[in-house]
Amino acid sequence: MQKKRIRDYGVIIGRMRPGARNAITDVPGVKVGHVTIRDDTHRTGVTVVVPGPDNAFVNKYTAACYVHNGFGKSAGLVQIGELGTLETPIALTNTLNVGLVWDGIVQYTVDRCRAEGVNVTSLNPVVGECNDSGLSDIAARAVTQADVLAAIAGAGEEFEEGDVGAGTGTVCYGLKGGIGSASRVIEIGGREYTVGVLVQSNFGSTVDLTVGGAPVGERILRMKESRRDMAVSRQDQGSIMTVLATDLPVSDRQLYRIIRRTGVGIARTGAYTGHGSGEVMIGFTTANRVPKDVGNAGRGSAGPGSTASDATGISATGTGSTLADVKAAGIGEPAAAGLLTQTVIHEDLINKAFQAAAEASNEAILNSMVCAGRAVGRDGKVYYSLAEFLPGCLEDQA
Amino acid sequence: MQKKRIRDYGVIIGRMRPGARNAITDVPGVKVGHVTIRDDTHRTGVTVVVPGPDNAFVNKYTAACYVHNGFGKSAGLVQIGELGTLETPIALTNTLNVGLVWDGIVQYTVDRCRAEGVNVTSLNPVVGECNDSGLSDIAARAVTQADVLAAIAGAGEEFEEGDVGAGTGTVCYGLKGGIGSASRVIEIGGREYTVGVLVQSNFGSTVDLTVGGAPVGERILRMKESRRDMAVSRQDQGSIMTVLATDLPVSDRQLYRIIRRTGVGIARTGAYTGHGSGEVMIGFTTANRVPKDVGNAGRGSAGPGSTASDATGISATGTGSTLADVKAAGIGEPAAAGLLTQTVIHEDLINKAFQAAAEASNEAILNSMVCAGRAVGRDGKVYYSLAEFLPGCLEDQA
Amino acid sequence: MQKKRIRDYGVIIGRMRPGARNAITDVPGVKVGHVTIRDDTHRTGVTVVVPGPDNAFVNKYTAACYVHNGFGKSAGLVQIGELGTLETPIALTNTLNVGLVWDGIVQYTVDRCRAEGVNVTSLNPVVGECNDSGLSDIAARAVTQADVLAAIAGAGEEFEEGDVGAGTGTVCYGLKGGIGSASRVIEIGGREYTVGVLVQSNFGSTVDLTVGGAPVGERILRMKESRRDMAVSRQDQGSIMTVLATDLPVSDRQLYRIIRRTGVGIARTGAYTGHGSGEVMIGFTTANRVPKDVGNAGRGSAGPGSTASDATGISATGTGSTLADVKAAGIGEPAAAGLLTQTVIHEDLINKAFQAAAEASNEAILNSMVCAGRAVGRDGKVYYSLAEFLPGCLEDQA
Amino acid sequence: MQKKRIRDYGVIIGRMRPGARNAITDVPGVKVGHVTIRDDTHRTGVTVVVPGPDNAFVNKYTAACYVHNGFGKSAGLVQIGELGTLETPIALTNTLNVGLVWDGIVQYTVDRCRAEGVNVTSLNPVVGECNDSGLSDIAARAVTQADVLAAIAGAGEEFEEGDVGAGTGTVCYGLKGGIGSASRVIEIGGREYTVGVLVQSNFGSTVDLTVGGAPVGERILRMKESRRDMAVSRQDQGSIMTVLATDLPVSDRQLYRIIRRTGVGIARTGAYTGHGSGEVMIGFTTANRVPKDVGNAGRGSAGPGSTASDATGISATGTGSTLADVKAAGIGEPAAAGLLTQTVIHEDLINKAFQAAAEASNEAILNSMVCAGRAVGRDGKVYYSLAEFLPGCLEDQA
Repeated sequence: MQKKRIRDYGVIIGRMRPGARNAITDVPGVKVGHVTIRDDTHRTGVTVVVPGPDNAFVNKYTAACYVHNGFGKSAGLVQIGELGTLETPIALTNTLNVGLVWDGIVQYTVDRCRAEGVNVTSLNPVVGECNDSGLSDIAARAVTQADVLAAIAGAGEEFEEGDVGAGTGTVCYGLKGGIGSASRVIEIGGREYTVGVLVQSNFGSTVDLTVGGAPVGERILRMKESRRDMAVSRQDQGSIMTVLATDLPVSDRQLYRIIRRTGVGIARTGAYTGHGSGEVMIGFTTANRVPKDVGNAGRGSAGPGSTASDATGISATGTGSTLADVKAAGIGEPAAAGLLTQTVIHEDLINKAFQAAAEASNEAILNSMVCAGRAVGRDGKVYYSLAEFLPGCLEDQA
Repeated sequence: MQKKRIRDYGVIIGRMRPGARNAITDVPGVKVGHVTIRDDTHRTGVTVVVPGPDNAFVNKYTAACYVHNGFGKSAGLVQIGELGTLETPIALTNTLNVGLVWDGIVQYTVDRCRAEGVNVTSLNPVVGECNDSGLSDIAARAVTQADVLAAIAGAGEEFEEGDVGAGTGTVCYGLKGGIGSASRVIEIGGREYTVGVLVQSNFGSTVDLTVGGAPVGERILRMKESRRDMAVSRQDQGSIMTVLATDLPVSDRQLYRIIRRTGVGIARTGAYTGHGSGEVMIGFTTANRVPKDVGNAGRGSAGPGSTASDATGISATGTGSTLADVKAAGIGEPAAAGLLTQTVIHEDLINKAFQAAAEASNEAILNSMVCAGRAVGRDGKVYYSLAEFLPGCLEDQA
Repeated sequence: MQKKRIRDYGVIIGRMRPGARNAITDVPGVKVGHVTIRDDTHRTGVTVVVPGPDNAFVNKYTAACYVHNGFGKSAGLVQIGELGTLETPIALTNTLNVGLVWDGIVQYTVDRCRAEGVNVTSLNPVVGECNDSGLSDIAARAVTQADVLAAIAGAGEEFEEGDVGAGTGTVCYGLKGGIGSASRVIEIGGREYTVGVLVQSNFGSTVDLTVGGAPVGERILRMKESRRDMAVSRQDQGSIMTVLATDLPVSDRQLYRIIRRTGVGIARTGAYTGHGSGEVMIGFTTANRVPKDVGNAGRGSAGPGSTASDATGISATGTGSTLADVKAAGIGEPAAAGLLTQTVIHEDLINKAFQAAAEASNEAILNSMVCAGRAVGRDGKVYYSLAEFLPGCLEDQA
Repeated sequence: MQKKRIRDYGVIIGRMRPGARNAITDVPGVKVGHVTIRDDTHRTGVTVVVPGPDNAFVNKYTAACYVHNGFGKSAGLVQIGELGTLETPIALTNTLNVGLVWDGIVQYTVDRCRAEGVNVTSLNPVVGECNDSGLSDIAARAVTQADVLAAIAGAGEEFEEGDVGAGTGTVCYGLKGGIGSASRVIEIGGREYTVGVLVQSNFGSTVDLTVGGAPVGERILRMKESRRDMAVSRQDQGSIMTVLATDLPVSDRQLYRIIRRTGVGIARTGAYTGHGSGEVMIGFTTANRVPKDVGNAGRGSAGPGSTASDATGISATGTGSTLADVKAAGIGEPAAAGLLTQTVIHEDLINKAFQAAAEASNEAILNSMVCAGRAVGRDGKVYYSLAEFLPGCLEDQA
């Protein structure tokens, strides 16, 4: 992350303290990986958010999703909504590549489960998308299943922002968009927790761009006069995908409320969420994990990997993970057989997480823009980087 | 409950075992009360489901609601959906009386909180309704705030079914409808839990009535020939309100899934949920209660009624309830400050609760009908009791 | 509307042109009325938005509602969501008065229908609320049914903003809140349409207040030093109710999308929609009205007030309104029996309405604040008017 | 369709009249195609419902979707929910094949649009799924993009039911499931309309199976004694996909209400919608089509294929379809520029469509079962056909 970020230009978004990296990977266990495809006809790729080191399919993450504007093709939301769990990495890509990337997540999960001796016949890949057809030959579906596997394999706590991975070909407020991230640290009950956000930005009409309250878009349009090759967005369309991670102990309902506040962060960049802008939020917490098998819920003295059964006649075979693994993964104390113990914040304390979500998403969008270099569109127009207008556009030069 | 119920006619609904009373009050703590208004122009009333003995506003119930068909005027659903909690008794009444009954719930809660030294400036009354205008002068709004207070004061574990309270003037499948209840006992992890249902039945077209799979409605229409004064419903309209209570440890999301299955119980009585039939489900569990004040969440060694504060600067004054009260009310062990510990079933075990919800709602509807005596409508037509056709209509007499 | 509004301070919100009054009543037919209750213990009231001159119950309005944050007690949303229609005036009041105001809407509609010979046994009052307990004795429910009738009777195209009606006791960003309105004119297909918004503002933490991008809240907190009696909000709580009216020909689904964008207007004033802030949007269009009775749908040459019937056996009696009335009310050309003809905009043109909704709601909130005079809270603290800090707080005086 | 269907066994579901084929293809223009994969390790395939002969991407279908139980991986629902339109054929397949089949729909649409000179950079494939892993090696994702193209190319009005296409490997109530269809004809305003349903059945516990009210499942379990190799389902899991087509003029909201009633048809076959049963409904009407481009909305005298523009600056290029094409596709009369005229039924008439949806889905499920031949599972157990127990299981032989 050696690129200059929005904070490096002196723009401080909000009032809360960022985490060490000011990125989604400040949440312990979370990693991000990219595969970038950039050649004469393609500017696209895939970005993955890996929620933790162990197999998510075996110990699922408490999760939520929210559709802010549904002109989009994201997959996997139905099951998150019903069950409140995430069981795979989250992948972002271009609009028409959702199918192949979805298939790549299947391949990854099947391979991993087989290696671990876990039976898998049904799984729910989660894939988000933005339309990068202004810069890339989207109909070609250039991202392959192998690219998904490579992005997961290469995921780390340090990752690049801007025009990489799924952000390689995106456009934001008529400037170059991309992948961006930010985080906030909050304290509850004497302990610190992190709220991290990663966005794939591809929305907004140039005139609306707002940075820290300043009408930067209007100024950029005035500064455009001397740049005849410069592209401009006249419609608020294109989409933004938002992934939120936290280690805060919350329920799926609370998480749903938290991720909705990333819409405030989007609004603070100026857009009104146009008709054609698919805006989808997906969130997970690394607290309150949910074991795949009922046999792993509420084991009393039964050893790890044992077979439990209860009155339903459901027989749960061990998953190969040890109890220590399970505990390390954040699963609560065993309760009675078939029961899970979870810890959630009192609702009156949730405002801190709301504010963190709003601030981090606002800053993540700006980071996605300033970290992206300029690019030439398929129509020859140039999508400039916001960085090229900084710091000038922050000041009123009337 | 001395009236003959559907089981007394030899009709066994489903395969699960009912609780001791086969009623919603089999769930420990739950009580039901009625005020019935029956005179020359009115056949209406109010029925309340009181979730437990202590003040629900101070220790809220984990709750959920579901709108199966939204042609209805139920109040209080928005906040249940957002926060997953119930903080008052649930009241059922006639359609145009929702406002006054709502106001009665406010009066009850304000009075109780004042008596207990609890500050209350905002509360969420939950009121359901059915349209009884075929039998009653609905525009008169005959149910008063005082009736609500009386129904709550008179609530008990034993309660009448049929044409009482909010069921005094309802019509179901063209026969007399009313209030009905049933319950099922399920076992999870070696412990027994109860799922109880109470309905206010006011829906269905006569021809569709099905009892235990038998096309009873078609047979009743044939048996009608000798009953010239008999009313018949030709449209599936009118509404059914369903209240589900349980002591099963579930989250609000799980409860939402459970109450949706009461729609299966409705379908098993034959209706297809007509356009004009407002069908609303409200459920709560007596497990996983949520304290009003953050100071009561995760108190370490702090005594009851103490004032807690945390880094938000929110100051929570004691509620006057003792820790023993709180524990007796089902609130889990204190966790860290600001955190709540909850216990939920593993999702793979939820099918038992689904089946219980389907069976209990099916039987509750039939109980509401056989327990209701015949009544004369405002147009002079007679709404017969299903009991008058039993057991004959159960047999194919072709 | 002789009070100074935000535009009178030189603050221009957005880029679109307001209507003649810059108020919701720029939409032809829409009227607004207040009853204000202000004495030693009460600062509260009721505000009504009357959608048009004829009986809404007879010719319903295409409508939509949206719950942005459901910590609120609004009534009537369930049926709007299911059927997409509004059949009464919309009333706003204080939180604990929803029941009595609901009952007042029933009285109004029953009275009117009786006077017009229209049968009514079921109707769906729509009531929104904010909590004004900081300034008023909310438990007293001071607003009566008679107040609702008076507010409707007194409704007009010109109406007061600020601390009147349902805004008499509200608090916004720690300053005095109230009722505010604004409008925008958009052009589609060569014709002009109006999008109008009315808000009851009662939300926000002082530090977050933003006016036209300027961090006014932070500056006001600094200016507070010399005002020891000044109240401040440290939490984003309290609620905002938003009513949107338009004459744009849209479907209920399109209207739902449009009213969601008023959340952008709220975000532009700085708040992140706190946990305790019930934020509910209700919208209607005066185009595409829906007749109560199927007999009024698609009448060929049948005269007004005739009785139509179709194969369902449903018999629809005339409503007393003439065909000319119906046409004037915006109902489309008769189609075949039982069918309605509606006109909707192509979805690609909806962005104009989105932008109008965002701008008008932003400006309506600011109008509600600058038009409200200062008030003393129940705790003796003073809720200042935003007007007292203008124009100073708009300038950076560092 | 030479296989014996449930009606051929004397079982008449409901009271309404079926269409000529008693299948979804009774709706004019609708076609169904299968590709079946059946070898040593695979029993799977793909089934497509093609909504009409012309390009759905150019003239979209008014559509709706509903998630009855969200334990499923269906793709494409988000956009249907937001925009109320369908723009591709609907494909059904096995759970882990959703990605590749989704990609196949992309290929089909891109190819067709290119052939027709239509620009396409974003499209919303709709794919449903059931888990056939009991009979097939699901991890292999045996269905290819080419299979999708072949299924569409081979689609017709006559199509096979039972163990074909996406139903090749499904299991229903422990017996062999598959693809089934049925239809109902309703009359509104003197004109006949068709409601058709197609299901992919893969759900239910054997004991719950109900046929026309008869407890067939319980009887089959008793008849099982002499069939030691017979498989049985002890859990209600697996999923059912329901596609509903109609030519009734309805809005997307009305369609949403109609497809929800297919859940009643499911309940009438005995299941309570188990935890693991993904139940998703997708519906479309061939009335009220929506042109892709605003230039095709409300063209006055402008010729076909012309370029329209309006005040937004949006420029809509002609799609190559002629006005005659558009009219033939059911698009209403041109209104003013940018406006669409639609015809919808009066809501009071919608009950007929509700009843039709309930009856047709009930019968479609039974057809899917009786038309499917027995199959051997991967564990060696035999999934019998319901046909093998008919007519015996319909009679009480106690």
